[in-house]
Amino acid sequence: MIRVSIIGANGYTGLELMNLLSGHPQAEIAHLVSRSNAGVKVSRLYPSLHKFECKCFEELDLGAIADDSDVVFSALPHAASAEVCGKLFEKGLKVIDLSADFRYRNVSVYEQWYKVKHPCPELCSGAVYGLPEIYREKIKVAKIIGNPGCYTTCSILPLYPLLKDKIIRPQGIIIDAKSGTSGAGRKAEVDYSFCEVNENFKAYAVTTHRHTSEIEQELSFAAGADVALSFTPHLLPIQRGILATIYCEPEQGVTGGDIFTAYQKHYGSEPFVIINEEGVLPEIKQVRHSNFVSIGFKLDKRLNRLIVISALDNLVKGASGQAIQNMNIMFGLDERTGLEQLSRYI
Amino acid sequence: MIRVSIIGANGYTGLELMNLLSGHPQAEIAHLVSRSNAGVKVSRLYPSLHKFECKCFEELDLGAIADDSDVVFSALPHAASAEVCGKLFEKGLKVIDLSADFRYRNVSVYEQWYKVKHPCPELCSGAVYGLPEIYREKIKVAKIIGNPGCYTTCSILPLYPLLKDKIIRPQGIIIDAKSGTSGAGRKAEVDYSFCEVNENFKAYAVTTHRHTSEIEQELSFAAGADVALSFTPHLLPIQRGILATIYCEPEQGVTGGDIFTAYQKHYGSEPFVIINEEGVLPEIKQVRHSNFVSIGFKLDKRLNRLIVISALDNLVKGASGQAIQNMNIMFGLDERTGLEQLSRYI
Amino acid sequence: MIRVSIIGANGYTGLELMNLLSGHPQAEIAHLVSRSNAGVKVSRLYPSLHKFECKCFEELDLGAIADDSDVVFSALPHAASAEVCGKLFEKGLKVIDLSADFRYRNVSVYEQWYKVKHPCPELCSGAVYGLPEIYREKIKVAKIIGNPGCYTTCSILPLYPLLKDKIIRPQGIIIDAKSGTSGAGRKAEVDYSFCEVNENFKAYAVTTHRHTSEIEQELSFAAGADVALSFTPHLLPIQRGILATIYCEPEQGVTGGDIFTAYQKHYGSEPFVIINEEGVLPEIKQVRHSNFVSIGFKLDKRLNRLIVISALDNLVKGASGQAIQNMNIMFGLDERTGLEQLSRYI
Amino acid sequence: MIRVSIIGANGYTGLELMNLLSGHPQAEIAHLVSRSNAGVKVSRLYPSLHKFECKCFEELDLGAIADDSDVVFSALPHAASAEVCGKLFEKGLKVIDLSADFRYRNVSVYEQWYKVKHPCPELCSGAVYGLPEIYREKIKVAKIIGNPGCYTTCSILPLYPLLKDKIIRPQGIIIDAKSGTSGAGRKAEVDYSFCEVNENFKAYAVTTHRHTSEIEQELSFAAGADVALSFTPHLLPIQRGILATIYCEPEQGVTGGDIFTAYQKHYGSEPFVIINEEGVLPEIKQVRHSNFVSIGFKLDKRLNRLIVISALDNLVKGASGQAIQNMNIMFGLDERTGLEQLSRYI
Repeated sequence: MIRVSIIGANGYTGLELMNLLSGHPQAEIAHLVSRSNAGVKVSRLYPSLHKFECKCFEELDLGAIADDSDVVFSALPHAASAEVCGKLFEKGLKVIDLSADFRYRNVSVYEQWYKVKHPCPELCSGAVYGLPEIYREKIKVAKIIGNPGCYTTCSILPLYPLLKDKIIRPQGIIIDAKSGTSGAGRKAEVDYSFCEVNENFKAYAVTTHRHTSEIEQELSFAAGADVALSFTPHLLPIQRGILATIYCEPEQGVTGGDIFTAYQKHYGSEPFVIINEEGVLPEIKQVRHSNFVSIGFKLDKRLNRLIVISALDNLVKGASGQAIQNMNIMFGLDERTGLEQLSRYI
Repeated sequence: MIRVSIIGANGYTGLELMNLLSGHPQAEIAHLVSRSNAGVKVSRLYPSLHKFECKCFEELDLGAIADDSDVVFSALPHAASAEVCGKLFEKGLKVIDLSADFRYRNVSVYEQWYKVKHPCPELCSGAVYGLPEIYREKIKVAKIIGNPGCYTTCSILPLYPLLKDKIIRPQGIIIDAKSGTSGAGRKAEVDYSFCEVNENFKAYAVTTHRHTSEIEQELSFAAGADVALSFTPHLLPIQRGILATIYCEPEQGVTGGDIFTAYQKHYGSEPFVIINEEGVLPEIKQVRHSNFVSIGFKLDKRLNRLIVISALDNLVKGASGQAIQNMNIMFGLDERTGLEQLSRYI
Repeated sequence: MIRVSIIGANGYTGLELMNLLSGHPQAEIAHLVSRSNAGVKVSRLYPSLHKFECKCFEELDLGAIADDSDVVFSALPHAASAEVCGKLFEKGLKVIDLSADFRYRNVSVYEQWYKVKHPCPELCSGAVYGLPEIYREKIKVAKIIGNPGCYTTCSILPLYPLLKDKIIRPQGIIIDAKSGTSGAGRKAEVDYSFCEVNENFKAYAVTTHRHTSEIEQELSFAAGADVALSFTPHLLPIQRGILATIYCEPEQGVTGGDIFTAYQKHYGSEPFVIINEEGVLPEIKQVRHSNFVSIGFKLDKRLNRLIVISALDNLVKGASGQAIQNMNIMFGLDERTGLEQLSRYI
Repeated sequence: MIRVSIIGANGYTGLELMNLLSGHPQAEIAHLVSRSNAGVKVSRLYPSLHKFECKCFEELDLGAIADDSDVVFSALPHAASAEVCGKLFEKGLKVIDLSADFRYRNVSVYEQWYKVKHPCPELCSGAVYGLPEIYREKIKVAKIIGNPGCYTTCSILPLYPLLKDKIIRPQGIIIDAKSGTSGAGRKAEVDYSFCEVNENFKAYAVTTHRHTSEIEQELSFAAGADVALSFTPHLLPIQRGILATIYCEPEQGVTGGDIFTAYQKHYGSEPFVIINEEGVLPEIKQVRHSNFVSIGFKLDKRLNRLIVISALDNLVKGASGQAIQNMNIMFGLDERTGLEQLSRYI
């Protein structure tokens, strides 16, 4: 059994980790850290988590975690996360960090977009970007995983094969993304209160959202050239799910068949990627609660424009499910272990 | 023109007052007090409130308010509200208090249920309970109005005629009430965040909700005897509206016709009460955004039980609309002035 | 492997059956009957159901079903269901009927409330009411299961122990129940369209809902006396979940401890019942997507009234999950097999 | 008083017309046509519409309408609408058609995108496109108004001044639009049922939505050149409101100040257009229930791309409010009459 600790267990990604791990046959929980709820029994707050009946949330105790765990998931905010992760890495633990701290190859790009000093920049070069569909081999031997962001996963996966195979031009890409409210975390803020979010819809952080830099980093690798793109996030009055509508320009002569073939080539054997035929477009309900990402597209010949649509659950494939997928790879398990949960549709 | 100031203008009841008053032909705004937004232009936060384009939210300045206002609406929390209202009353203003502070005839009942010391108990006996359908004559000459609570209005209005006319027994009444989330106010609390409220439903404050005492006070007057009842509030994942399902026992021989007649007698000429025929039951969407309360009922002969259902908008008839209705009465205007807004259904 | 067919597979309970069975290690799908989608691949409509990739929805073919199946789930409407179930029973299949057709011991009660002639009344006496917490031993040897209704399960389970152990009086019970919209099925009706349901709330079928008779049947058995009660259903603007607020009168001297003890005695070892301490009240999000029912209560000493609150997912413990629980019992499996799915909270 | 009839009164745009007209001081209702509800009292279905207490919905009777009306609003589906409108026009009535039938200058474009034969093409050249901010002078003398579509209004208004004043290039425009579900009408279809829409989000009619042709028609006039653009509609799980996120390329040297100035020049004195400073972006709740359209923008210098965001209520400025605005202009009234309804924010 893999001994797992979660730091920041009572936020939405932490809660999703607990839920998924409670059904994971090869994992057992060592410590669940939540400062605000230290001492409270897990099953008091979440009665259906009967498997954790005798577990309590705890204060952070690095020594105890290091003694009892093989791997730690950190769901702390950025900067705070790297500080804790760095120490646990030094004590020999494998680290899967759900914050942005270990996602960047160039620390200065991170520091510029996040406007903080990185607490342990020396560890970044050894960290692996935890997108199994692209970096599976590196993940197998990784010690620190920078688990990708939710918008990021939903943006990179549909574009990566198209740029890699020169199906589309790297200029002029626009990602118009819409996310459920859990993407903002579990927050005591009026802006995320029910009455403010419900029956509303808005864009935010237009031209300035931090995930832009993460998407550009990975797509530049794919394209072999600098990619600069528009990324516009919007807040959906739903709990879970992201749908991205992506506009790009196909290279001359590209057909729908070429696009489908490229996706098949890159993702045909991927356990968590659904590739749809041209014109069959993903909806959030098809992937909600599951670890799937679904990709569809439509070629607009009138305008020579390609529209790609991707959807995933921001808490699963966009965070905690992907983190467990990474853990499975790191420990040599079947990648799907504990992630069998399908979308419930409604 | 009636010069009006609002204290606590940026909460949901304050905002509703601003909205309604912006269309009131006999009222003009003097001061809009909001500590958290003092100095901010109203139209910056609420672009459609163009009528207030040059107005800014202000800090509380009792002197300025007293100089420029004929009437003040207080949307402050209880206890804090009475403190301010008492001072403005002394300066000669008419006061409409949306908190619970002036709703009780017996201050000790208030102090027991709200667990605070009343800041100006000497003013309570002169205050009038602002339910126009019952106390219209007293409201006409009132100086201080204790504007009823939202659950309270939705509970008292359907039961008052039945108890007054001995249609039902005063024992055994059960009010199972369900409220939209704006009833909790504009709050930075995780419990009222979108992800916690949406797709959920729960009861709260079971057997202990403060509005119980307010409902019992008024219904005891109606019955001419002590009424003690069950009041169970629930949180609905909608923004506005309350629906109360009320169970009570009809006196022997009572028919549906008797009940309809009692409602007609008491409310037949009321501008804001909709009386439905037996079996036609109110829905929240029929009254949302309007100042109407809708009342329906069904007699269960099999069990000799009467089921009454009432619905209103908690921010309008349950708070700010009723407050303006009171203002209209106090100033001798047509009671409907500025309250023509109908339910939009969707 | 148990060979399973589903008739009415594309409705919400059918879809939930497919979802749950796709993760059931001892079941395999034989036939999925859906007239409206006959010939369509399951994975075309539900891409995440990859396990059924080569399955298509089919027309009803009783012979093929009988040849290939050990058990059949019928999610057809009442009357239509019994007609099909009767024939499949005659061909030797075990039948789990999710309609009301086999829930009644007295066929005339069924015919009176459902206003139809029962197609095979002779089979009713041999059918077992599929509530495992009460009829587990009978279910083990049953050939036909009348799977309980969603409101019914949520009403009977919390009241059964209290009536059985004479904790409460059998008179005067009131069940005020609120259900998510999937309880109405997958319907092309304006009344269940998004714009009509959302931001609304209403009662319906007041004093006349069919489930009343089913609840009274089972609670009369529990009490050993005729129970007649008020059951008032309401439509919640959420997709899944039922919460029932139940009012009843405790026998003299009953304490909160007595009630907790009664629940422990009856349900302490039940795999899918959560018993909460007095004052800890269930919310829908604690059970949504899971097969759990959660029961809480509060004794109101002021009024000598007991308020019990129960919550479950109408599509799982209120329909398809319970059906699979019954199947597991009928086939001698661990009752929890394939039902490990926890509530996801959000 | 202007005598008004509504054909198709019980759909969502018809209902919105009734609501708005019930508060219009210069209009009185002549006939309310709804085949499915002919004979039913309006106040039975919509109790808050007390002003229409003695009105019933009626069958279509062209003679009676012609006798009693000065103007008719048609909320019928396309093609059916023109057939009726044509006859009423011949009888001398002013006609405001909310369908697409009179929006096109080139009937063949209409016939190609709507795939029907136009019932009275000879009337199209005399019809005026009812967008007051652009065609006010023509509307004053119009006999037939083709009232613009909801997506269309939300797309044309923000782009018109920028194309007219050569602020942006006419190539490469992308409109990513998101609409509340009432935009689909009042429909008995599973696809628009609560459980299918709620907690979901999807794109639809990608590259093929009919409103594309209407937007291109008007923007080509603005640009003085053929405009061909991407228009991608999405279905939001809210009742009302559209938000469009528009991507375009500014001409060289254009500044945020230039854009703001262009909007001020074109719309500075418009009663229903809110122009926001650069970086202040509209949200749906700021305009919901009102006749306002709100326009904001952000210039992305990094990419030389302009992002414009516009929001309106699809049933008000996107349909019925605009129709009444047109009526006011046609009859020489203050354009704002009956349209004072502000956004309620929540």
